[in-house]
Amino acid sequence: MVIHQIAVQQGLRHTLYTELVPEARERGISKTNLMIVVVVLLSFLFLALETEPTLAAQPAWQAAFDTFNVAVVAIFAVEYVVRVYVSGLQPEFAGLSGRLRYMTRVYSIADLLAFLPEMIALLLGAGIPLIALRVFRLFRLIKLARFVPAFDVLGAAVRRAGSQLLTTLAMALALVYVAAVALYFIEGVGGQQQEMFQSIPRAIWWAIATLTTVGYGDVYPVTPLGRAFASVIALAGIGVVALPAGVFASAFSDELRERELARLKDRVEEIEAEAGAAPEESQA
Amino acid sequence: MVIHQIAVQQGLRHTLYTELVPEARERGISKTNLMIVVVVLLSFLFLALETEPTLAAQPAWQAAFDTFNVAVVAIFAVEYVVRVYVSGLQPEFAGLSGRLRYMTRVYSIADLLAFLPEMIALLLGAGIPLIALRVFRLFRLIKLARFVPAFDVLGAAVRRAGSQLLTTLAMALALVYVAAVALYFIEGVGGQQQEMFQSIPRAIWWAIATLTTVGYGDVYPVTPLGRAFASVIALAGIGVVALPAGVFASAFSDELRERELARLKDRVEEIEAEAGAAPEESQA
Amino acid sequence: MVIHQIAVQQGLRHTLYTELVPEARERGISKTNLMIVVVVLLSFLFLALETEPTLAAQPAWQAAFDTFNVAVVAIFAVEYVVRVYVSGLQPEFAGLSGRLRYMTRVYSIADLLAFLPEMIALLLGAGIPLIALRVFRLFRLIKLARFVPAFDVLGAAVRRAGSQLLTTLAMALALVYVAAVALYFIEGVGGQQQEMFQSIPRAIWWAIATLTTVGYGDVYPVTPLGRAFASVIALAGIGVVALPAGVFASAFSDELRERELARLKDRVEEIEAEAGAAPEESQA
Amino acid sequence: MVIHQIAVQQGLRHTLYTELVPEARERGISKTNLMIVVVVLLSFLFLALETEPTLAAQPAWQAAFDTFNVAVVAIFAVEYVVRVYVSGLQPEFAGLSGRLRYMTRVYSIADLLAFLPEMIALLLGAGIPLIALRVFRLFRLIKLARFVPAFDVLGAAVRRAGSQLLTTLAMALALVYVAAVALYFIEGVGGQQQEMFQSIPRAIWWAIATLTTVGYGDVYPVTPLGRAFASVIALAGIGVVALPAGVFASAFSDELRERELARLKDRVEEIEAEAGAAPEESQA
Repeated sequence: MVIHQIAVQQGLRHTLYTELVPEARERGISKTNLMIVVVVLLSFLFLALETEPTLAAQPAWQAAFDTFNVAVVAIFAVEYVVRVYVSGLQPEFAGLSGRLRYMTRVYSIADLLAFLPEMIALLLGAGIPLIALRVFRLFRLIKLARFVPAFDVLGAAVRRAGSQLLTTLAMALALVYVAAVALYFIEGVGGQQQEMFQSIPRAIWWAIATLTTVGYGDVYPVTPLGRAFASVIALAGIGVVALPAGVFASAFSDELRERELARLKDRVEEIEAEAGAAPEESQA
Repeated sequence: MVIHQIAVQQGLRHTLYTELVPEARERGISKTNLMIVVVVLLSFLFLALETEPTLAAQPAWQAAFDTFNVAVVAIFAVEYVVRVYVSGLQPEFAGLSGRLRYMTRVYSIADLLAFLPEMIALLLGAGIPLIALRVFRLFRLIKLARFVPAFDVLGAAVRRAGSQLLTTLAMALALVYVAAVALYFIEGVGGQQQEMFQSIPRAIWWAIATLTTVGYGDVYPVTPLGRAFASVIALAGIGVVALPAGVFASAFSDELRERELARLKDRVEEIEAEAGAAPEESQA
Repeated sequence: MVIHQIAVQQGLRHTLYTELVPEARERGISKTNLMIVVVVLLSFLFLALETEPTLAAQPAWQAAFDTFNVAVVAIFAVEYVVRVYVSGLQPEFAGLSGRLRYMTRVYSIADLLAFLPEMIALLLGAGIPLIALRVFRLFRLIKLARFVPAFDVLGAAVRRAGSQLLTTLAMALALVYVAAVALYFIEGVGGQQQEMFQSIPRAIWWAIATLTTVGYGDVYPVTPLGRAFASVIALAGIGVVALPAGVFASAFSDELRERELARLKDRVEEIEAEAGAAPEESQA
Repeated sequence: MVIHQIAVQQGLRHTLYTELVPEARERGISKTNLMIVVVVLLSFLFLALETEPTLAAQPAWQAAFDTFNVAVVAIFAVEYVVRVYVSGLQPEFAGLSGRLRYMTRVYSIADLLAFLPEMIALLLGAGIPLIALRVFRLFRLIKLARFVPAFDVLGAAVRRAGSQLLTTLAMALALVYVAAVALYFIEGVGGQQQEMFQSIPRAIWWAIATLTTVGYGDVYPVTPLGRAFASVIALAGIGVVALPAGVFASAFSDELRERELARLKDRVEEIEAEAGAAPEESQA
């Protein structure tokens, strides 16, 4: 009886392991993990909607938010307990010290922070301010990172672009500063003494809005000389400020293409190995 | 007499077939279909002008709109009847059941909806609200799609860009969300408690306007911390948000070039085949 | 005496010919033509300054404008007469009928319109309205075109981009129209019934300002649904609307590179031919 | 005693030389120079903060600014004296005339202007206006240029892009002018006679804001004809105005890549030479 129970437990534990630990599968994502990703995405959608005063004022929406939040806390709490439980199947996290090592990983701490503050608030009543709770919900982003290799690509692309990214970024920042100082002297100190250009930090805000071509229109030169300068800076500078973005985009695209190629190559080799193994088996 | 009449009818039907069915020609577009394309484009121009209050108030323009609409309904009605009539020449639409199959195709339903609601409204008087009629006119876009292979290229480009498009899109959306949450906390919750940043969905509107560099200027940060964050996000993020557009543009351009190459290759082979067949004929 | 005078006249005519007719030189631009280019550019600068009310109100500037305009009219009048005079040295414009053929060329008519209306106004007093005179001054742009091969590259780039440019342009326009119709229904007809979206042509103005990322901020959606739509359209559409510009830019750049290559190749061949010819001469 | 002192002095001078003169090292930057770069960057940060009225009004910040400025002046004064002192170790600056030649270099004059005006103001009291002092601080940018090879790349990229950059720039400027003149006639002269379009220079400001897609929203057409023109110009012109930036960006990126390649190649050759020399040494 006991042995059978242990076997069932072992079987369950193994099933949970393959369902929850991404490294347990070669490709793709398990149904449980896919559900967790969907819950995290939904929780971000609800976090956004919750902050909207026109929705929060309606009782129906408020009830929906409350129900959803309780459900999410419950799901993430269960998920956390099970993850700690099955982590023992991985050799590096076996034993009590291994379990402790598992629980102090970034991912595990994020898993905990993703539900614990909210759970305490639910159990104790409104002891924690709402804003703090909402900030803690952002830790759910790290839960996602586990399943999304793209975040990894981001870092690799930055490393790949390396010194080119640094040089172009330094140049862009230098141009922003020089443009801001020029317009500060022309518009803020001389001429119309515009309030929006009356310090270099304010002029930097203008320079960034202009050189990224966002151009909100909250700050713009009004003197003829300021406009002439701004025109020359805009025509010449947009290319320079767009350089780091271009360098990064091209590094990112290269990185992505290489990884896809490597993945396809692995897959082809795998299929060839299987095809090579199969005839031998049939010969045997 | 009767046989002669049938022959004439058959001849007319065949002429109509080659004029109306795009698949009946190897290349280019028949004069009748070109006229239909022009009528559709004109109907979109008139739809736009009709909605302009300053024009709709003038009797001369109103009369022009009415005349044009009646003419378009008449043309599309005749076109629909003739299309159904000649569809029988295509083997897959022969017979009554074939005709029914033809009439339930997307293109045929769009052909019907492109004139029927307006025709009913004209015959019965103003029974259908004007807005509904105008919405139905948008089905004329599908009439165009029949002749424009570019819509097809659009889909092929999306498929070609595939996982790269998905990854970059996910990254762009994640960045938009993170930027919005950051500015919501800085501008909406803390600091100046700006009304435009007082919920995450509103902050998302700002993030999209900024990271696409549209920058309407209806929403922008005003606190020093908010501006510092927005500056960093703008400088770093514009490249990331532009990535999916860049990936798509390059896939679209590649797809278009390949198709043009394939078309030119086909044409060359055709000419060579004709050149090869001709001498043999002259030898015979 | 008479013969000598004719010879001098012939020599002068020939000198004027090589100075004025661009085709008379293999490379570069003659000093006289360079001066004409500078005068044309200056006349555009003065045209711009003249229209500025704050400058036109000052007597000193007004005097400078008047003096400059008289000088320019005199220079262009002399240039025109001399050009007609020396055109006879080109075989295709020899004789009276050739001279007439020369005077009816686009360039010659532009040369005439670049000074004649202004000269008549100066001689007769202010018979011609100032605005008309200023419009006529724009014909001086065509005088420039004679010396600038880049305008020629522009046309060649458009032809080179050909069907790709057409397809992407059609797609961009279709997207602009669809985006405008969608926002017209959401913002203009439904919801807040914004005045700026109350007709499709007005919505098209919004769509173009948004999809080109100019974003003046004079028109923008205010309803949640309108903003959601606009966000999706902006994220997806900016890539599509930027396609024709990208296609053109790449065609232009290719065209420019090819021409520079061809020019360098010609130069190399020339030098080689000279180097090849020189030893033979020294051998002889 | 005296000889020993001279030797110590010579040793110190040599150490200072290797620490201060960038050419004394093959790669990287010395700790002293790195500190100077950081001080220059900090001085730009403080220059920006100092101009902000909300900070300058607070005594604590004012004290920080004053202390920092005195420290910077002291550091740069010491640096200048030491640089002049050790420059004698470079053969071209040896002797009194060499020292004079060193002190009249652009870098040395910038070094002097980076602290002298401020030092005089500190010693004499507020004899020099604050604005002038702040302008002089910008000379510190030239101090940076000594250590940043990227400024050099900028010039090389412009030379590399050469005639392509010139042609595209001319085309962009021509388009800006033509667009401005068109909108001046449509919006400023005819139609609504908008004040913002009432001269060509003002219309040029609109054209640049539009064609660079900055779009502040301080100027935009309001008449239907003006909007139609502006739409066509925006759709067609953005590609043209972005051309010079694109040409420059690609030249810059090529230049940067080539230099990195050359640097890596040098490094490889160096390592190979060392590896080749080492065995010989061990053989000997």
